[in-house]
Amino acid sequence: MIAHATPDTDTALVRQLTHVFGEQVSTAQAVCEQHGRDESYHPAVAPDAVVFARSTEDVAETIRLCAEHGTPIVPFGTGTSLEGGVAALSGGVSIDLTGMNQILRVSAEDLDCTVQAGVTRKQLNAHLHDTGLFFPVDPGADASLGGMAATRASGTNAVRYGTMRESVLGLTVVLADGRTIHTGTRARKSAAGYDLTRLFVGSEGTLGVITELTLRLQGIPEAMSAAVCSFPTVESAVQTVILAIQSGIPMARIELLDEVQIDACNRFSKLDHPVQPTLFLEFHGSEQGVVEQSEMLAELASEFGGSDLRWSVHQEDRNRLWQARHDAYYASLALRPGARGMTTDVCVPISRLADCIAETKADVEESRLLAPIVGHVGDGNFHLVFVIDPDDADELARADAAHRRMVERALAMGGTCTGEHGIGYGKIDFLEAEHGEGVAVMAQIKRALDPHNLMNPGKVLRL
Amino acid sequence: MIAHATPDTDTALVRQLTHVFGEQVSTAQAVCEQHGRDESYHPAVAPDAVVFARSTEDVAETIRLCAEHGTPIVPFGTGTSLEGGVAALSGGVSIDLTGMNQILRVSAEDLDCTVQAGVTRKQLNAHLHDTGLFFPVDPGADASLGGMAATRASGTNAVRYGTMRESVLGLTVVLADGRTIHTGTRARKSAAGYDLTRLFVGSEGTLGVITELTLRLQGIPEAMSAAVCSFPTVESAVQTVILAIQSGIPMARIELLDEVQIDACNRFSKLDHPVQPTLFLEFHGSEQGVVEQSEMLAELASEFGGSDLRWSVHQEDRNRLWQARHDAYYASLALRPGARGMTTDVCVPISRLADCIAETKADVEESRLLAPIVGHVGDGNFHLVFVIDPDDADELARADAAHRRMVERALAMGGTCTGEHGIGYGKIDFLEAEHGEGVAVMAQIKRALDPHNLMNPGKVLRL
Repeated sequence: MIAHATPDTDTALVRQLTHVFGEQVSTAQAVCEQHGRDESYHPAVAPDAVVFARSTEDVAETIRLCAEHGTPIVPFGTGTSLEGGVAALSGGVSIDLTGMNQILRVSAEDLDCTVQAGVTRKQLNAHLHDTGLFFPVDPGADASLGGMAATRASGTNAVRYGTMRESVLGLTVVLADGRTIHTGTRARKSAAGYDLTRLFVGSEGTLGVITELTLRLQGIPEAMSAAVCSFPTVESAVQTVILAIQSGIPMARIELLDEVQIDACNRFSKLDHPVQPTLFLEFHGSEQGVVEQSEMLAELASEFGGSDLRWSVHQEDRNRLWQARHDAYYASLALRPGARGMTTDVCVPISRLADCIAETKADVEESRLLAPIVGHVGDGNFHLVFVIDPDDADELARADAAHRRMVERALAMGGTCTGEHGIGYGKIDFLEAEHGEGVAVMAQIKRALDPHNLMNPGKVLRL
Repeated sequence: MIAHATPDTDTALVRQLTHVFGEQVSTAQAVCEQHGRDESYHPAVAPDAVVFARSTEDVAETIRLCAEHGTPIVPFGTGTSLEGGVAALSGGVSIDLTGMNQILRVSAEDLDCTVQAGVTRKQLNAHLHDTGLFFPVDPGADASLGGMAATRASGTNAVRYGTMRESVLGLTVVLADGRTIHTGTRARKSAAGYDLTRLFVGSEGTLGVITELTLRLQGIPEAMSAAVCSFPTVESAVQTVILAIQSGIPMARIELLDEVQIDACNRFSKLDHPVQPTLFLEFHGSEQGVVEQSEMLAELASEFGGSDLRWSVHQEDRNRLWQARHDAYYASLALRPGARGMTTDVCVPISRLADCIAETKADVEESRLLAPIVGHVGDGNFHLVFVIDPDDADELARADAAHRRMVERALAMGGTCTGEHGIGYGKIDFLEAEHGEGVAVMAQIKRALDPHNLMNPGKVLRL
């Protein structure tokens, strides 16, 4: 069963939308339900209607009509958010952007491109295939680039190439009153006025709907190689990473899987890694540079008791390795058939990462929970999936409490309540714990740009 | 002569400030005049009083008292802004942050630190000397880090290490109503709410006063080397850089000086480079990596008719090279004794940089002006100094017109009206030309956070 926040959105609005957009509007129950559900454990809430936008002007017209009726607007990309971002908590209209899937421009000389918001990262990379360029931000899911910007997504290779914060040069955004603005330019840097681009990146649809993005691209490196290394403890793995970063080894990916997670991945992806804390690594550079980087890393790893590096040089082997990493969530669920996953992430200064993980693991054990850990360890970011029986209220309560302690622990260590999943409606309390009076400033900005609280209401901020 | 915007700030306010702060307050004419003047060609405007703050609480108390009296506040770092940022256009109180010069914390493991806003970049780097770390952002002037954040400064090595936008992890900011907020955390990345850090970076004191900063640091590379390469044309130099970037050569600095500028530098810094468009380059990495990078670059350069690379391997030679680059402005002025400099910068997509420079040079020549060009060419950013006779109204008008055409040209090419100097009160018209309706959104944010327009009024936005 999926909740509906309101019995029906203003039928006059639906009539108007249908008049303007015809078959681009749906109020079919199945369509609405699909648009209120993401990949999180948070309850889905269906919108009352869905508009399938094909252009910025479609989005602007939908928002203008909704604004006239005081009806909430919830943008929808691929529905892969992890904190309930697409749930229509106050009902209203979902704007589905998947039809806005045009790649508008690629400049190989400038290493940039402009795309519509519904283009997914895999679609963009397929399009770039022959250009020698790629778009690096990779959160696992084949999310839409508009959605990735809206949630400030990052992923496995942010340690080298940055997150959406660093990758977006400019945006086209439709505001709550239907105005369309263009933020940023194609210049690499600018000191011209307030950084509206960075304000909308990570605002989760609460300040406006992103319809187009200008993105930085990267040159495909001459050489890439991936390796796996096992460690006696999480701490020794993290110490290796800290020293590697201090030494300036420009690792492209450096992922930590704890022994619970590597066991799950071994079973699910038919691998045979030792059941120990493990680093999955990838190096990008010149042929010579990649060899040099990996030799330096291997030397550091051995100082901390790491195993010899096991190599995946061929594209096929590398894909298999990273597919296993991306499937970590499903591997975790498969440890306990019938169980549900409750996923979360935090990010701390890397000097505190080993402590944060160790204390969290101890807490999970004391709380009699199953919760594998994977981490973008170069960024100090780690994820945990509580694998729980959805019918066991006591277990759910223990997971909730352990989750709360995990976030409090991260905040006490100078970290953040989410490195990349976002706030949605799942982490609003934690945002307040993290930012205090800063949340009041966010609310001032929200009220200035969306005085009637129509843009994805109930997300990020509690007004 | 220096202008005073108002005959006197409320004497009751000065009495209150003196009561609270004693000798930390000055209304001496010389002190006020110094605090209204920066390094730009824009007319200086003195504040009516200066408070020498020693703590965030001093700043907060000053702002609270000013707010009670409706008196404007202008923050002051080192006075090295280039668009009139410190001019007290509506009078009021200058808050001098130079006394807030404590380095509060350095973490070598996390490659970060926390400093008070008055710490300068050279002071920080001297402090870091034995840690193996450095702070890379280098705008030339030994500016305060608070001021650098406020103007979103960058400089010669932004191409490798980013600008202040990428280098600030978090801020302590005092708002217009005296509240103090802490933005960001020590985590490398976060998806927790609106990016207030990036909103205050580049806001030029118009939304609040930055009092503390948490900054990313970089590991000092194992090897560094610098080189100079001459080219037949600006275009061939720029094409070399474009291919170098596409090839992923991670250059740390790559500066273009046109033949007018290199001639000026030769004379001023007693160098003997050929009077041709010239690249100043610096490579950072492992011993082997630096050799590899420079060999790749040399090969590309020779394809475009570049000279052999002339090396500066020793620290002393490198310092001499970069000192000459930093002295480019003074070298330009020395071309014409008694002349004044009118400096500006724009930033365009790198594919348009050669055209933008060529058209600008042609315009300068047709306008019978002297205007050397230097550029952070890897970013598409270039600077131009009109070297003019301050008493020649006709020449000034020609320079103004050529400047306007240069910015319009950059905007038409998809660029920005300033890559790193900021808007201040010199480029407000250009900001409007660049961002259109976006400026209205910036004004909505400004009004939400500073409803009485007391924070550095008249800068960035015209309300």
